[in-house]
Amino acid sequence: MSKQAVVIEVTRGPIVESRHEGIAAVVKADGTVVASWGDIDHPVMPRSANKPIQAMAFVESGAVERFGLGNEHIALSCASHSGEKRHVETVRAWLAKIGLSEADLECGTHAPRLQSSIEDLVREGQHATPAFNNCSGKHSGFLSTAVQYGEPTKGYIGYDHPVQKRLRAVMSDLSGVDADGFAYGTDGCGIPTLATPLRSLARAMASMADPSGLSSKHADAAQRIRAAMNAEPFMVAGSGRFCTLVNGALPGVAQVKTGAEGVFCGMLPTLGLGVAIKMWDGAARAAEVAMASLLSHLGVLPADKHEELLHPPIRNVVGLLVGEMRPAKSWLG
Amino acid sequence: MSKQAVVIEVTRGPIVESRHEGIAAVVKADGTVVASWGDIDHPVMPRSANKPIQAMAFVESGAVERFGLGNEHIALSCASHSGEKRHVETVRAWLAKIGLSEADLECGTHAPRLQSSIEDLVREGQHATPAFNNCSGKHSGFLSTAVQYGEPTKGYIGYDHPVQKRLRAVMSDLSGVDADGFAYGTDGCGIPTLATPLRSLARAMASMADPSGLSSKHADAAQRIRAAMNAEPFMVAGSGRFCTLVNGALPGVAQVKTGAEGVFCGMLPTLGLGVAIKMWDGAARAAEVAMASLLSHLGVLPADKHEELLHPPIRNVVGLLVGEMRPAKSWLG
Repeated sequence: MSKQAVVIEVTRGPIVESRHEGIAAVVKADGTVVASWGDIDHPVMPRSANKPIQAMAFVESGAVERFGLGNEHIALSCASHSGEKRHVETVRAWLAKIGLSEADLECGTHAPRLQSSIEDLVREGQHATPAFNNCSGKHSGFLSTAVQYGEPTKGYIGYDHPVQKRLRAVMSDLSGVDADGFAYGTDGCGIPTLATPLRSLARAMASMADPSGLSSKHADAAQRIRAAMNAEPFMVAGSGRFCTLVNGALPGVAQVKTGAEGVFCGMLPTLGLGVAIKMWDGAARAAEVAMASLLSHLGVLPADKHEELLHPPIRNVVGLLVGEMRPAKSWLG
Repeated sequence: MSKQAVVIEVTRGPIVESRHEGIAAVVKADGTVVASWGDIDHPVMPRSANKPIQAMAFVESGAVERFGLGNEHIALSCASHSGEKRHVETVRAWLAKIGLSEADLECGTHAPRLQSSIEDLVREGQHATPAFNNCSGKHSGFLSTAVQYGEPTKGYIGYDHPVQKRLRAVMSDLSGVDADGFAYGTDGCGIPTLATPLRSLARAMASMADPSGLSSKHADAAQRIRAAMNAEPFMVAGSGRFCTLVNGALPGVAQVKTGAEGVFCGMLPTLGLGVAIKMWDGAARAAEVAMASLLSHLGVLPADKHEELLHPPIRNVVGLLVGEMRPAKSWLG
């Protein structure tokens, strides 16, 4: 079933102006590869695309119940959010509930994603704080588990901190591979990111999509995370974002999550499948079209309703249609 | 001399996280290919990377003298500027000199490049206008030629307008290929962008680097454009930008210009060479490292002084060094 590569084309006028190549794996929870393109044993940094897996330890900890948290917080723990008002305010309130504040976040500060959010901050005489970091929900989940287990909160981003050890234990359980053996680098938000074979990343997502082979604790957490991503799609990303559109449009059918450097993961519970994509060049625009194309190819994304995800228009500054993105015929043709 | 491909790697921790592939041509003015990687006969949209070529018709028109313009305007006519204050104010003053205003620019409006510029606009109660468009200098050059020749200014972005016909005539003269035969699409700023074989794009740059075979009118314009790009490097791009750094650091030795979708062009007058690069995936970050690497490879960019251009550090949100970009050993190793 392995073909050469995922290929996404970008047209301008009559020619293909640019093209992106990548690898993809569609896997069952037992590790059976249903479809693949390229070398799926290649280790990739999952970056934020594995946040739903990382959220497992948070949901399993009991912190959700203890601190009166809900779907919006679980969705935020899986999020690369845009730093819009509701994201930031929810994170701040969450940290207060667990007796902490933004000063405890070790993810650092970056500007919100939208120009309008940046402009709002200036108008209000405010500036971005760690809660604006797209990973602040995930980090609030990390801190919640540290508080729940009575562990030091300081240093929770370190490879040897119990918070990070739990993430590797979950990854090992879901992927069937010992994650302690993975090489690792440092993610944008400071935590270790583990060089994971794409096949194993897809299998971990499949285990969350079809948790029948997992412990009841893991299975329950996976189902709650999937439900939260569909119930609160805005919290997973933000206004106009791919993850928000797809997770909102396909409740119970698909839960997808983007990551930096062209990674995309998805759970397809009705099919019992996990999907993982890595575009070699790291392009988010291409990973999105690749995910939409795979979802359509697998029959879960109706092409007639989601043309703009499958063939995103390229418009110039004045709004003129000058090209489009599309899966290459050599890929899914 | 043709090798497989330009390859730029992006590392994170111990692994290559992402990689970019492209094509490159290093050509003499007579068309001799000095070095090449990949299929350099592939047509590419030059986008903004050929602005120095497009500036030829402006400089040759006599508008510079008639309207009392100088190096800063010539540099702006070659620019993809960041929309900083000096760029915007210079464009506005220039348009006033030729009896026009921003209302005559047909490039459309987009936000300035820097977050600080966006914030400044809010603080001042202003908003972006067409002068902020990164192409507004080039368009002011176009309008200057239309005024100079007594042509209609309205519609100057159209394929059949004399302004655009002149650009194709210059391109034909410099590249040795009839540009009227090129397929074309619409650029971000509304003008036609011509699908140009990479080899021909590099040759046109070589003709500007070594104009000894050109008419004296072309040769004089090429020399003035090269001098202006080195004399006013800020006007070619903006604060912290690759083109500004390189054009400022290598007066008389190199004049480089970026374009959208991973294109980069350069003139190397001391070597009599032209360079053209296209990264297939359209990544500017990779095209920059590819250009720096080629300049170093050709002996014009001292590696010890420009380590940050040759191996740009990848830092995470808190500023920690987590990886780097570099040319792959398979390319220039």
